[in-house]
Amino acid sequence: MENQNNIGEASTNQIIKQVINYWTDRNKAVTNFINKYPDDAYYKEVAPNRSRAIYLFGHLIAVNDALLPMFALGEKLFPEYDAIFLSVPDKSVADLPSLPELKKSWEKLNETLADHFNKMTANEWLDRHMSVSVEDFKHEPLRNKLNVLINRTNHQSYHLGQMILLNA
Amino acid sequence: MENQNNIGEASTNQIIKQVINYWTDRNKAVTNFINKYPDDAYYKEVAPNRSRAIYLFGHLIAVNDALLPMFALGEKLFPEYDAIFLSVPDKSVADLPSLPELKKSWEKLNETLADHFNKMTANEWLDRHMSVSVEDFKHEPLRNKLNVLINRTNHQSYHLGQMILLNA
Repeated sequence: MENQNNIGEASTNQIIKQVINYWTDRNKAVTNFINKYPDDAYYKEVAPNRSRAIYLFGHLIAVNDALLPMFALGEKLFPEYDAIFLSVPDKSVADLPSLPELKKSWEKLNETLADHFNKMTANEWLDRHMSVSVEDFKHEPLRNKLNVLINRTNHQSYHLGQMILLNA
Repeated sequence: MENQNNIGEASTNQIIKQVINYWTDRNKAVTNFINKYPDDAYYKEVAPNRSRAIYLFGHLIAVNDALLPMFALGEKLFPEYDAIFLSVPDKSVADLPSLPELKKSWEKLNETLADHFNKMTANEWLDRHMSVSVEDFKHEPLRNKLNVLINRTNHQSYHLGQMILLNA
């Protein structure tokens, strides 16, 4: 091996940083996509009879916003999005927030999460998230906050793959 | 904090395990999707004028297969897939391998990768991958094998999001 790392606290911190970096990278990919076309384009379905791009964008905001309470970092910034983008599929609600409004929410949420994530210690990342009980976590220590972030990063990639199909 | 972890070698190993677990989980999600419908269904495009599901499946095999040389674990198992699923978009090549053949390749590849991944040490995961030089890696230590796995897991999620749109 050319590079013999010292496995320990520093490597734990480094890997956590890598996971956060990739989360940030996928955030940026969504930001780039949503700023690529004129606003009107995002009101189209990504495929026939599937969700509109604007709905998927709002859905990502609602899902990512839930990280705040799940990580015990505070209340959701946009709890009103749940009834529009989380509990129901697209076209269930007549009036969506406008794209400019969603873009502002997205930016605000990403800044808020980044501020928290940059302050969180390795111990905090490896501690339980709020949807698992203290008792269950004793038996399932992988149900920690970092695992949720890995999951949500992939959730973002999943819907980005769909949004990118938009025939704008 | 309820659970004060001891941050060190054990936590490094745990996080690496979590990253591998999520990779395996997304492999399984692709496997489930590709076994969900009769074979014929996968020859349809996932959206109008977009890739067929069978192409995206072959593309995932070709991209994941490249992890073997990239991690210095050996040669690609299916180098012939590159010219069909990697260098060119869908419908460039007249005859694709059949879906049953691709399913076999997918299984074989996943088993091969899993065998290697389970044996790799934390030091190996945090060492450079073969597309970055020794010299560059000194300055960019995050360009390690684990980072590639995080990236490829998200790549899988991205295309799974597209495949799932298939109107089977």
